[in-house]
Amino acid sequence: MNGFIINKERLEQRIKDLSLFGMNQVGGIDRSIGSEADKKARKWLIDLFEEQLKAKVKIDPIANIWANVDGSESLAPITIGSHHDAVPSGGKFDGALGVLLGVEVVERIIEEGYELRHPLQIVSFSAEEPNPFNLSTLGSRISTGKISKEEVKKAVNKDNGILLSDALAEIGGNADILEDARLKPGDMSAFIECHIEQGRILFDRKLSVAAVKKVTGIYREEITVLGEANHAGTTLMKYRHDSLLAASEACLELEKIIVEINRNDVVGTVGKLNVYPNSANIIPASIEFILEIRTPSTEIKNEIIEKFSLSFKAIEEKRGVKFDRKIILNQAEVNMDETVVKALEASIEEISEPLVDMVSMAGHDSVHMTDICKTAMLFVQSIDGKSHCADENTKMDDIEKAGNVLLRTILKLDKELD
Amino acid sequence: MNGFIINKERLEQRIKDLSLFGMNQVGGIDRSIGSEADKKARKWLIDLFEEQLKAKVKIDPIANIWANVDGSESLAPITIGSHHDAVPSGGKFDGALGVLLGVEVVERIIEEGYELRHPLQIVSFSAEEPNPFNLSTLGSRISTGKISKEEVKKAVNKDNGILLSDALAEIGGNADILEDARLKPGDMSAFIECHIEQGRILFDRKLSVAAVKKVTGIYREEITVLGEANHAGTTLMKYRHDSLLAASEACLELEKIIVEINRNDVVGTVGKLNVYPNSANIIPASIEFILEIRTPSTEIKNEIIEKFSLSFKAIEEKRGVKFDRKIILNQAEVNMDETVVKALEASIEEISEPLVDMVSMAGHDSVHMTDICKTAMLFVQSIDGKSHCADENTKMDDIEKAGNVLLRTILKLDKELD
Repeated sequence: MNGFIINKERLEQRIKDLSLFGMNQVGGIDRSIGSEADKKARKWLIDLFEEQLKAKVKIDPIANIWANVDGSESLAPITIGSHHDAVPSGGKFDGALGVLLGVEVVERIIEEGYELRHPLQIVSFSAEEPNPFNLSTLGSRISTGKISKEEVKKAVNKDNGILLSDALAEIGGNADILEDARLKPGDMSAFIECHIEQGRILFDRKLSVAAVKKVTGIYREEITVLGEANHAGTTLMKYRHDSLLAASEACLELEKIIVEINRNDVVGTVGKLNVYPNSANIIPASIEFILEIRTPSTEIKNEIIEKFSLSFKAIEEKRGVKFDRKIILNQAEVNMDETVVKALEASIEEISEPLVDMVSMAGHDSVHMTDICKTAMLFVQSIDGKSHCADENTKMDDIEKAGNVLLRTILKLDKELD
Repeated sequence: MNGFIINKERLEQRIKDLSLFGMNQVGGIDRSIGSEADKKARKWLIDLFEEQLKAKVKIDPIANIWANVDGSESLAPITIGSHHDAVPSGGKFDGALGVLLGVEVVERIIEEGYELRHPLQIVSFSAEEPNPFNLSTLGSRISTGKISKEEVKKAVNKDNGILLSDALAEIGGNADILEDARLKPGDMSAFIECHIEQGRILFDRKLSVAAVKKVTGIYREEITVLGEANHAGTTLMKYRHDSLLAASEACLELEKIIVEINRNDVVGTVGKLNVYPNSANIIPASIEFILEIRTPSTEIKNEIIEKFSLSFKAIEEKRGVKFDRKIILNQAEVNMDETVVKALEASIEEISEPLVDMVSMAGHDSVHMTDICKTAMLFVQSIDGKSHCADENTKMDDIEKAGNVLLRTILKLDKELD
């Protein structure tokens, strides 16, 4: 294995090249599904797959891009991939890195003349990020049967009114035959996604890479606080049922509960909140907000819900308001496959890097791929933990280590898996 | 004076009649300036002034309606009035009561053949309420030179795109000669506005009426809390600079400071608050909110500002966020005229009602009229303190008392004033 390492300079150049599609004036990447930047990036990727890897490229009906390189035996492929779309003014590494590392690893295997039993496959899933069609992890969810054809057919870009089905048609998809994109268990031997961590665990511990063992569960409630609108001048403080003050207490209670639990794998956020009628001289009648908890432990999740339910009751009584609560997401935590994680960790140890327990606190296409095959993720350090912004950055030395771990992992799995 | 009292039944009928213009399905009144309901109400009022009072009616360039009845001497008129527009789904009494009580008092004086030295005048000011042109107390502010012609000419109805100047033309105004609406000190001998209290002071004390001695000052800051947007999953609690949590603390601190002061004439409110980017999975980057304080005491206002400035500093330090503050309104408290207040209070005592110190916690056209002449207000009890809603209500017995107080006050002022 000594000289069998990835070509860091080539990879670095490709990361730069791909980042030019959609780069804006502040250095952020605007590349949501169906945009001009997306179309250019797709053409560039397909050319790369066909010209550099001599791969067979297939665009499925949801416009996921699949590149296939044959193996020596008739086995289901080992697949490496991620996505190439970006949040508005996002970073160069989120998603793109996982696709380009796949290319680099496959290319090195081909260059080395190393014969694998398994076919190798690279995928770039469509629309992993939140997007104007309001359907994130779109490609992997369609491929695993988690979104209906009807949902796709009625989805509209909220910014420009374009139908998702029309946008798909322009990038090689076809909303009329989405069922053809559907994967079934066993279609792949394994799926590995390399991704930037988007958090500070590796950065704070000065580590380069980690195998992900679990992906967090995500729980969301949409909460309406019903108070009473009234004149902000003539209503004495004691007669108010101010829904904003009630919601303020609720947000701070959630923070307090989460902070007290004091774990690196438990977070809680209110990211969205709207005030009605939202006028300087009217006491807020009602507030709508979304409360989110993320943890890989159902037990901890339930403990948090129990605590804030008690807090909300106390706020209701104290302020004479009402909390109307609706669970809008209750996605369980997902375990990564033990065989693949072991292969990743053995490879990490071989390049003399320490191991660390890692939970992904963000959702990824990999969550859905666990339905189909043995799936795991490899995280690479994010400088300062930043992502979804122009400042998102990862050191090339860390990316090189991730590439070499991935290369070794593929060789191991090729031997181990049938 | 024994039989010289207002005609309660006639007044009640007129309050009902006027409320039909713009009444919606839930019983609220939709009658903002320029609406069809406004046009119908204006025609009805003009007919009432001309037919019942034989008054000379004038529509000034901002479409204020003035009705004049001669006196025996060449003196500046004593004016009674308020407004007839309403907030969306507002009540029947807010504004309309002050105009119709004016009609009733003048009509009784005419019926009784009581000869006054002063001419009497009734006014219904245009657009006192918040409206889609975003210019409240429009009529009185134009009449007192507080809004420029340019501001009126560029104002547009945000709901339908109609220019305010076009809306004015349709109701007898003329934005090209707004300067002709301008009043000068001495144009009136006195101005009295009768209005529902819109608060609970009279209701809680089971009182019917009160002379207003001061109108509250209003102070508003537009505050931007600058935090840091970040991934709601991958950002540990300790690394967050959550602007919503900072704003939540700020709102609760304001409430705490105001409640501790514990006075009936001091309130503080955050009625408007917007979250950016306002997405469930992004820690809020920034919050914009408007903080309002109302008090008739500059000293108390300054004390409150000092206290929350300290609180904001503490929140900034604790959370690593920044409060950008801008004063957007700093309207001083206004004293009502002592002579008119005395006449009102003497009349209240004559009808055997107790006196109470009253501050108006809402702004009114009267605030602006203090620039022109001796001005005061008479408040009538609001049931449950409700206003700006379909449930707004006031007992006819209380309205009758207000009418008789007003009638007596006019007779007194006619003797006292020159």
